[in-house]
Amino acid sequence: MQQNVHFITFSTADLDVAREFYVAALGWMPLMDVPGEIIFFQIAPGVMLGLFEGGKFNEDLADGNDHSAVSGVTLSHNVGSPDEVRAVVGAMVAAGAAVLKAPQPGAFGGIFHSHVRDPNGIVWEVAHNPGWSIGEDGTVSFG
Amino acid sequence: MQQNVHFITFSTADLDVAREFYVAALGWMPLMDVPGEIIFFQIAPGVMLGLFEGGKFNEDLADGNDHSAVSGVTLSHNVGSPDEVRAVVGAMVAAGAAVLKAPQPGAFGGIFHSHVRDPNGIVWEVAHNPGWSIGEDGTVSFG
Repeated sequence: MQQNVHFITFSTADLDVAREFYVAALGWMPLMDVPGEIIFFQIAPGVMLGLFEGGKFNEDLADGNDHSAVSGVTLSHNVGSPDEVRAVVGAMVAAGAAVLKAPQPGAFGGIFHSHVRDPNGIVWEVAHNPGWSIGEDGTVSFG
Repeated sequence: MQQNVHFITFSTADLDVAREFYVAALGWMPLMDVPGEIIFFQIAPGVMLGLFEGGKFNEDLADGNDHSAVSGVTLSHNVGSPDEVRAVVGAMVAAGAAVLKAPQPGAFGGIFHSHVRDPNGIVWEVAHNPGWSIGEDGTVSFG
């Protein structure tokens, strides 16, 4: 199995609320938007974020269980400074997100970060991580 | 807020089991591996998958809740043909994964896919999606 993720897909209670948050308030551009079904955003080279209506998410897994509670996962968005962390968190809150952890130094790695929950339950970490970088070819480095 | 995800991080009950599955059995190479704490894999240009020990995941969010049940999210791994879907699912099962949905045609988009759960609860979709492609610059296209 190649070491690749091509889609990250979340069960989403309310796609209209998601569209309001990511598109109208934060200015993201969907690659595809099928109302009542799914919204896709490209969020890295070759990688899509899918917000999949919760009932259809369950139908697609088709194992008879309800998977609509999003839990045990965070998405991280890295920025260039602690002030940018505060600014992005402020923009997310203005767009309708809730702060779980106010901007502060993290436990390790010298990071400065905050955790914010979007209106449908996706938890984002917004971080300044001075030991992390992406090379021109996309290779990630730490430290 | 830029339209970027840099880390996908999962609460992970047993990092030794995760290492056995992804590294020993599937052949993935960690960028960093801190036993008892976290394992990082690069899974796309500029994007990391983090498997974070469940107790430390809770400590990092620090909102007093238990986030150890992974729910409401899937990761997708796309391959070139239905036979490759079957082969990757077979490799994941041999490595210790459980099949949630056997390889079969999907509900839309002409895809052929399967859902498989890793030993710690991460659900993977393995898919052949003939309408999906990644351009040389990393731009994703559908249809």
